[in-house]
Amino acid sequence: MSQTRWNNAVVIGVGLIGGSIGLALLRRNLADRVTGVGRRRESLEAAAEVGAVTEWTLDLAEGVSEADLIIVCSPVSLIPEHAKAAAVACPEGTLITDAGSTKGRLVEQHYGDLGRGVRFLGSHPMAGSEKSGPRFASADLFEDRATILTPTEDSLDADVKTLTDFWTSLGARVVELSPSRHDEMLAFASHLPHLIAVAAAAAIPVESQPYSAGGFRDVTRIAAGKPDLWRQIFLENRDAVLTALDAFDHSLDALRGALRDGDPDALLDLLSQAKRNRDALGS
Amino acid sequence: MSQTRWNNAVVIGVGLIGGSIGLALLRRNLADRVTGVGRRRESLEAAAEVGAVTEWTLDLAEGVSEADLIIVCSPVSLIPEHAKAAAVACPEGTLITDAGSTKGRLVEQHYGDLGRGVRFLGSHPMAGSEKSGPRFASADLFEDRATILTPTEDSLDADVKTLTDFWTSLGARVVELSPSRHDEMLAFASHLPHLIAVAAAAAIPVESQPYSAGGFRDVTRIAAGKPDLWRQIFLENRDAVLTALDAFDHSLDALRGALRDGDPDALLDLLSQAKRNRDALGS
Repeated sequence: MSQTRWNNAVVIGVGLIGGSIGLALLRRNLADRVTGVGRRRESLEAAAEVGAVTEWTLDLAEGVSEADLIIVCSPVSLIPEHAKAAAVACPEGTLITDAGSTKGRLVEQHYGDLGRGVRFLGSHPMAGSEKSGPRFASADLFEDRATILTPTEDSLDADVKTLTDFWTSLGARVVELSPSRHDEMLAFASHLPHLIAVAAAAAIPVESQPYSAGGFRDVTRIAAGKPDLWRQIFLENRDAVLTALDAFDHSLDALRGALRDGDPDALLDLLSQAKRNRDALGS
Repeated sequence: MSQTRWNNAVVIGVGLIGGSIGLALLRRNLADRVTGVGRRRESLEAAAEVGAVTEWTLDLAEGVSEADLIIVCSPVSLIPEHAKAAAVACPEGTLITDAGSTKGRLVEQHYGDLGRGVRFLGSHPMAGSEKSGPRFASADLFEDRATILTPTEDSLDADVKTLTDFWTSLGARVVELSPSRHDEMLAFASHLPHLIAVAAAAAIPVESQPYSAGGFRDVTRIAAGKPDLWRQIFLENRDAVLTALDAFDHSLDALRGALRDGDPDALLDLLSQAKRNRDALGS
């Protein structure tokens, strides 16, 4: 694995993910400078305090002017706008990536020819937390977690290699999926579980909460995630999420039917199948 | 709080819960003898090895013959049979309790006059794990967790006090609910989350699993629980679980509708409400 050392990696959006990227780059001595770009002074100051950026600015064009790599870690709905603003202000031939949770529609609509040899190649580090903000940043956030690269037909092999090395140097395992396949997989692996947790947290009456044990807490934990961030993800990946939801409904209907019929064999089959699936995943 | 010291507490069923009760009683010096009764020699030997029982037997009648307290920790469907077998073989006037996850129908149907002054008063310690068996027993399993007592009109105040002291001495917070109210609350707080986890684990295709992060793991974790144990719980508490499932469907339908309509305001409201509910619960 080659370990490129970056002169100036620019992180646009210094929340949990952006902050953790900066922290990991600096702690691992993989960058001379990490520039933080954001919309809120407090977040940028916090990112500087925890050691996630060496410098920061509220001015995106200024921030990217000396970039040799740009990572857009903004909320999903703002990624295209920020990536395109970066593309016109960065040095010629700069590679731009992101850390967004949805890809298909965004990549199709926004990242054709960015001009001046600037390229976009999507990344999705599969890491995160119900916590948010740079104060929760961790240099190990990506360690042993998958990061998905989403090259298209137009992507350069050299860029795929550069970003593979980049994420690998932060500890991640890199896999490649097309943007649309990425969205299908994530609808099941991430967006559907979130939707389920939200529905569960909303359905369970307050008076039963004192009787909840670990199971209830586990099932609903991610419902504490940021509503606005998840709204964007759901809306951007609507079709795939609705398809995944249909599959979940199908499973739930089978369970409901077995329960309503008091069918012990069917119930045991469904519980056993779910246990096999879950055991295969590990804790 | 009075701390009764038991001469011979008998635990019928030495799995995770029964083993943890025995271990807690002996470690906290609350019992001279803890007798384990079970159907499988290996479990009983394991319970003795970890220090959860001082003696054990496969013969229920022999095991309870000198009991001054009996705790039936068998699988839910076997509790009435074991409690009634204990009631005819134990000393006169012995108090019997259990650790079962459902109460309403079982208590109504099985625990009228047990004869010879023997009484049944239900307990449900809200503790557990996806792990099972006496090797995972812990003397602290009940610490700071709720234990629900389910007295009926026929219960003696003295027995409620005895069991309140018993569970409190193991570290639990004791609350009282009627057997049917217990089942309603548990349907929401425990059984519905389990059903949701099972449906999620069954619905999510194997090829998407490599892309699952913490959220997927959290939502599906309890689906690794023992299928046979959960089948019994669902069948015993069928009506309340189906009612809770309707409430969940209602929440899920609202989310699906907002998503299908691409309604950002409705989606944000639902996500925000769920976050408030979940935040109120703590991590």
